[in-house]
Amino acid sequence: MPATEAINVLDAYLDRTRDQRLTDYVEVLRIPSISTLPEHSNDCRRAAEFVAGRARAAGLEHVEIADTGGHPVVYADWLHAGDAPTILVYGHYDVQPVDPLGLWVKPPFDPRVEHGRIYARGAADDKSHVMMHIQAAEAWMATRGSLPINLRYVFEGEEESGSAHLDAWLEANRAKLSANLAVVSDTGFFNGNLPAITVGLRGIMFAQIDVAGPDIDVHSGTFGGTLRNPATALAHVIAGLHDAEGRIAVAGFYDDVRPLTRLERAEMARLPFSDAEYMAGLGVDALWGEGGYTTLERRWARPTLDVNGIWSGFTGVGAKTIIPAQAHAKISCRLVPDQEPGRIFRAIRDHVLRVAPPGVRVDLTLIHGGRPLLTSIDHPAVRVAATCLREVFGDEPLYIREGGSIPVAASFDSVLGLPVVLLGFTPPDDNEHAPNESMRLDNYEGGLRTVVRYWEALAASLVR
Amino acid sequence: MPATEAINVLDAYLDRTRDQRLTDYVEVLRIPSISTLPEHSNDCRRAAEFVAGRARAAGLEHVEIADTGGHPVVYADWLHAGDAPTILVYGHYDVQPVDPLGLWVKPPFDPRVEHGRIYARGAADDKSHVMMHIQAAEAWMATRGSLPINLRYVFEGEEESGSAHLDAWLEANRAKLSANLAVVSDTGFFNGNLPAITVGLRGIMFAQIDVAGPDIDVHSGTFGGTLRNPATALAHVIAGLHDAEGRIAVAGFYDDVRPLTRLERAEMARLPFSDAEYMAGLGVDALWGEGGYTTLERRWARPTLDVNGIWSGFTGVGAKTIIPAQAHAKISCRLVPDQEPGRIFRAIRDHVLRVAPPGVRVDLTLIHGGRPLLTSIDHPAVRVAATCLREVFGDEPLYIREGGSIPVAASFDSVLGLPVVLLGFTPPDDNEHAPNESMRLDNYEGGLRTVVRYWEALAASLVR
Repeated sequence: MPATEAINVLDAYLDRTRDQRLTDYVEVLRIPSISTLPEHSNDCRRAAEFVAGRARAAGLEHVEIADTGGHPVVYADWLHAGDAPTILVYGHYDVQPVDPLGLWVKPPFDPRVEHGRIYARGAADDKSHVMMHIQAAEAWMATRGSLPINLRYVFEGEEESGSAHLDAWLEANRAKLSANLAVVSDTGFFNGNLPAITVGLRGIMFAQIDVAGPDIDVHSGTFGGTLRNPATALAHVIAGLHDAEGRIAVAGFYDDVRPLTRLERAEMARLPFSDAEYMAGLGVDALWGEGGYTTLERRWARPTLDVNGIWSGFTGVGAKTIIPAQAHAKISCRLVPDQEPGRIFRAIRDHVLRVAPPGVRVDLTLIHGGRPLLTSIDHPAVRVAATCLREVFGDEPLYIREGGSIPVAASFDSVLGLPVVLLGFTPPDDNEHAPNESMRLDNYEGGLRTVVRYWEALAASLVR
Repeated sequence: MPATEAINVLDAYLDRTRDQRLTDYVEVLRIPSISTLPEHSNDCRRAAEFVAGRARAAGLEHVEIADTGGHPVVYADWLHAGDAPTILVYGHYDVQPVDPLGLWVKPPFDPRVEHGRIYARGAADDKSHVMMHIQAAEAWMATRGSLPINLRYVFEGEEESGSAHLDAWLEANRAKLSANLAVVSDTGFFNGNLPAITVGLRGIMFAQIDVAGPDIDVHSGTFGGTLRNPATALAHVIAGLHDAEGRIAVAGFYDDVRPLTRLERAEMARLPFSDAEYMAGLGVDALWGEGGYTTLERRWARPTLDVNGIWSGFTGVGAKTIIPAQAHAKISCRLVPDQEPGRIFRAIRDHVLRVAPPGVRVDLTLIHGGRPLLTSIDHPAVRVAATCLREVFGDEPLYIREGGSIPVAASFDSVLGLPVVLLGFTPPDDNEHAPNESMRLDNYEGGLRTVVRYWEALAASLVR
């Protein structure tokens, strides 16, 4: 696909405006919009206002900071492209917490550019994509005065805390969200800046286990040996969640798992992936997981159960000789088609309550859930995206899955009935959800140019 | 034993000075001398200075705030009783941490008197005994100008953090600590204010387990299912420390345990103890522990292994979808004769390192240890103490053991070669090491009068 004149003009414009665009990107990264921590509520609103302001400046219309009951959704649209397709674009302006803060080389909300990367919490996940989309529209409007497609932005502020209010907001605004396609930009590449299109996402079920023993912490000498220790009981519960082969030992857990086909397994096996390099990147000397599957299969196409946090009793320096009154754990499952978060929560709750030992009281609470998603490589909108990626990045894109979850991607399918293309550009070594998150600037610039082309290519395609 | 004239005068003096004595007691309870927390170092020194000042005011000599390398020992003596026995008295002025602070009805260092009790951290453990001893000497000196025995005080500031520097200090000061008997006051009664003498103490081994996985916290979606989760690995290690019968599943752990004799078991079975009341007091609906032993046997004469604290990953409100880089637990064993803390630590370390799964690195660190102690009911100094307790409290004392540990009690035996009497007066429901610690004031006053009598009775006895 040779570049059209419009694209040549757009590329030149993007080259010219690079410094100003980077300044804008840095500015949004300064806002600590950590959605899961109540003390950052105002920062989430500030981030929403910033994004809304930039969307307005780019030429988008009906810009709205929409109340959801939680952190707001930023909505904006431009609908003057006649019978060209209407694209609903999704990204999120909220970010993960930053602890352990001590491991950040520089403060997480003081962005710095170094070695071709920009370092800050949210630099990749997902403010990069929000800014790319706004800057892509701005470039079209500045050079052509219009967009080749109709566009609706839905930029969320609760993705990192489970998108608790988004489904209800989508339901309530179904009428004004009519579109032909959802483009969800919250994924990334597989290998450096070799382009990739994500065609599968795992779902999620996040829960808390609370174990209560004696009314108060008691002296471990006076009482030790006579009562069930809640921390030990919790350890027993957690240790019993997997069997020796790494399978999840919960009745019914695998019932709805769609098996990998021979073809899917063959395609994954062809991808450039090395267990040794993967281990070196993590700093571990062995991998672990469900028996009978490769590492990539376990990351992308098999469900998991992990402890995300655990706490009980005395955790300071030195010694405190108590039996803790309570013990707590946060656990989460990654789900694959066709597992349903609520059903998985109930299976785990039933299992845990059944194995919970006498002498302690055990409760489980569902914190949030999201469905898995699998899209077809053959969808015209996926094929058009592949063409644009190849043109900008110079290589045929890989078709990959993502072990992470974007619950809303499944919602666009299930609530709005839209086909979903997952179009994202972050590098695999971006440290998202971890200290020293970063985004490669060449991926950022390439992503922006891919979006610019994608709108034109979709207008010329059969996607309606 | 009818009260002597001296005792009658002393009792009258103690009645008269009660308000002033309570004021002094309250004053030492205001000092947050938490020895395990570095930020309270100055408070530990303030508590030492307060105790030293009161000992000096009581008429003790050679009062010294002795440097130990950690928190100081307060030493004082009075050695003008000729060939009467010399008694080394031990107590400690440091206290346990106060978390969880939210469960305290009133601030822990703002003492209040209510319902015949004084509430504050340290009110029982162990500032009550330190103040009783000083006030008992003060009463003798104020009414008679002398003591009937020679007295040496050793009031420690590191009991709650493992007495790390005390053994070395005892060794270095062996010459000036010569005595006929050690009276260790850090124990209590078994049932309300029915008097009791403790004849057995468990030892302790306190350690930390550190589990390290990936270099940093990683995204549980992107990486979940492929690597060992340090929190799950720690749960496996902890769950494997006990077998299904509640026995500690560590090779060699029970090798040095002195079995209970038939007589010891019979005596424990005679004590007024109800599992149902014990459960109600703790707020639990079932007890648990090593099979084949009664609750009292498990508390006093069988070794234990408990988790005192555990922490890993995200512990805030809401969700953070990470696999934690590290997980940690504090564990401790209560030991019985003739278990040795260092040997037990090595047995547990060897076991844990053997069962630690690949993919994580596991380390164990010994935080502190103390030997168990068993004294004979037939020792003359124990029989004299029993007589004094009966005279003051009106009942024959029970002979009990204590599940807790006073490592220094074993040190007086092993380092200084002294017989040890455990003479303490705290009630069983004092919430020591827990929120809302309290001391019964009638136990306090009775304890004081028992000590006053004990000095005179020991002078008349054969203890030399």
